[in-house]
Amino acid sequence: MKILAIESSGLTASIAVADRDRLIAEYTIDYKKTHSQTLLPMLDEVRKMTELDLDTVDAIAISNGPGSFTGLRIGAATAKGLGFALDKPLIEVPTLEALAYNLVGTDKAVFPIMDARRNQVYTAGYTFVRNENEPSGYECVTLLAPTAIAIEELADMVSGEDREVVFTGDGCPVYKDVLDRMLSGRAHSYAPFTQSRQRAGSVALAAFSYFEKGLTVSADDSHPEYLRLSQAERELMEKKKADGEG
Amino acid sequence: MKILAIESSGLTASIAVADRDRLIAEYTIDYKKTHSQTLLPMLDEVRKMTELDLDTVDAIAISNGPGSFTGLRIGAATAKGLGFALDKPLIEVPTLEALAYNLVGTDKAVFPIMDARRNQVYTAGYTFVRNENEPSGYECVTLLAPTAIAIEELADMVSGEDREVVFTGDGCPVYKDVLDRMLSGRAHSYAPFTQSRQRAGSVALAAFSYFEKGLTVSADDSHPEYLRLSQAERELMEKKKADGEG
Repeated sequence: MKILAIESSGLTASIAVADRDRLIAEYTIDYKKTHSQTLLPMLDEVRKMTELDLDTVDAIAISNGPGSFTGLRIGAATAKGLGFALDKPLIEVPTLEALAYNLVGTDKAVFPIMDARRNQVYTAGYTFVRNENEPSGYECVTLLAPTAIAIEELADMVSGEDREVVFTGDGCPVYKDVLDRMLSGRAHSYAPFTQSRQRAGSVALAAFSYFEKGLTVSADDSHPEYLRLSQAERELMEKKKADGEG
Repeated sequence: MKILAIESSGLTASIAVADRDRLIAEYTIDYKKTHSQTLLPMLDEVRKMTELDLDTVDAIAISNGPGSFTGLRIGAATAKGLGFALDKPLIEVPTLEALAYNLVGTDKAVFPIMDARRNQVYTAGYTFVRNENEPSGYECVTLLAPTAIAIEELADMVSGEDREVVFTGDGCPVYKDVLDRMLSGRAHSYAPFTQSRQRAGSVALAAFSYFEKGLTVSADDSHPEYLRLSQAERELMEKKKADGEG
């Protein structure tokens, strides 16, 4: 049982290949190139280095959003293309859940935050509960389903959380000052750099859990979860509204 | 401040480049090729993909053992060669400490175990204590210094540990049955695949802590820490002893 995982929801581009018990390869770049310049060359590099016959992959896991619209579309197109060509199912892993898996096994409550611009963050909340039947040894329990909210709203919610809280994701450096101010006196921390950005290994680990529950989709039926309208869609709606009112 | 990290102490070959706050690139392979086939091509791949000018690297971190003798020698030769050519200092990170950093921030006591053959494991014990001055946000506190002991001896030691215990490293699948039997009734777990093998990102994260304490060495002065004699050295000593007695 082998999963190929693709992560391009944020600034990082990441590829992983994993057996149920072993990470065979993981390659992650956080660099100013676009995902269209990195993702496929990285996959090809990993394929060559591990002499991977793509036909032996059982499913393709994709970090399915929210995140950068362009990044998600490039990832989705790549995953769908591979799934279609190889006739393999896709596994859609919510990006924020995959980010939480960077800290799988922690006793803390994990709140991934991604900068969504317009004074909002994409965020969610998770804890990990021991469960030996899970591929990771832990069940990932949702405290807060993925949502786009203001950082102040998140800080309010986190204030009511009993457990110690750890934040991860590219929203941390952007919103650290606000969070520190609003959560002063409350135990909270920020994941260090090995745990603070998207990695395809975490997508793969979460994907094994989805796969074993039968939660796969066909390449045709897979779509990114943007959580919000794109800028173009927003502008179109606003124009329509203005035209209707004009 | 940029660190290039090299990890080849076990079956995985891994390369990472990191700023103090950011993992720029990480590439890890756990595949049957030898490190002499993988390590330099992987470094070259990462260098090209991130347009890295090696002269801009401030130090070279090396996972310094214990581990596979051949793997450690290839890693050491690569790090020393780079350090010498670029005139940069080396940072020697104990392999077992770098493995523990895979779980940086955990409340559990981390015991990395690597199969050392001859019924022994290379092992050590660590906990992480919040310390905002540390690059990772945590001080890595040594509970048990790196040593080569029988797995039963480790299980005995772990029985006396107050904290919940988590094992990581390639010794886990080999010794899980023994540990489960000897620790039955005692809370313990095994790190999932994203945290259970050497990764250069963890070497880099630990290395920033060493670097900021001034703990660097010159390429000339760097040597792997094998912890035990190699098979060839053992056989030579046994032969000398036999000759002396004969």
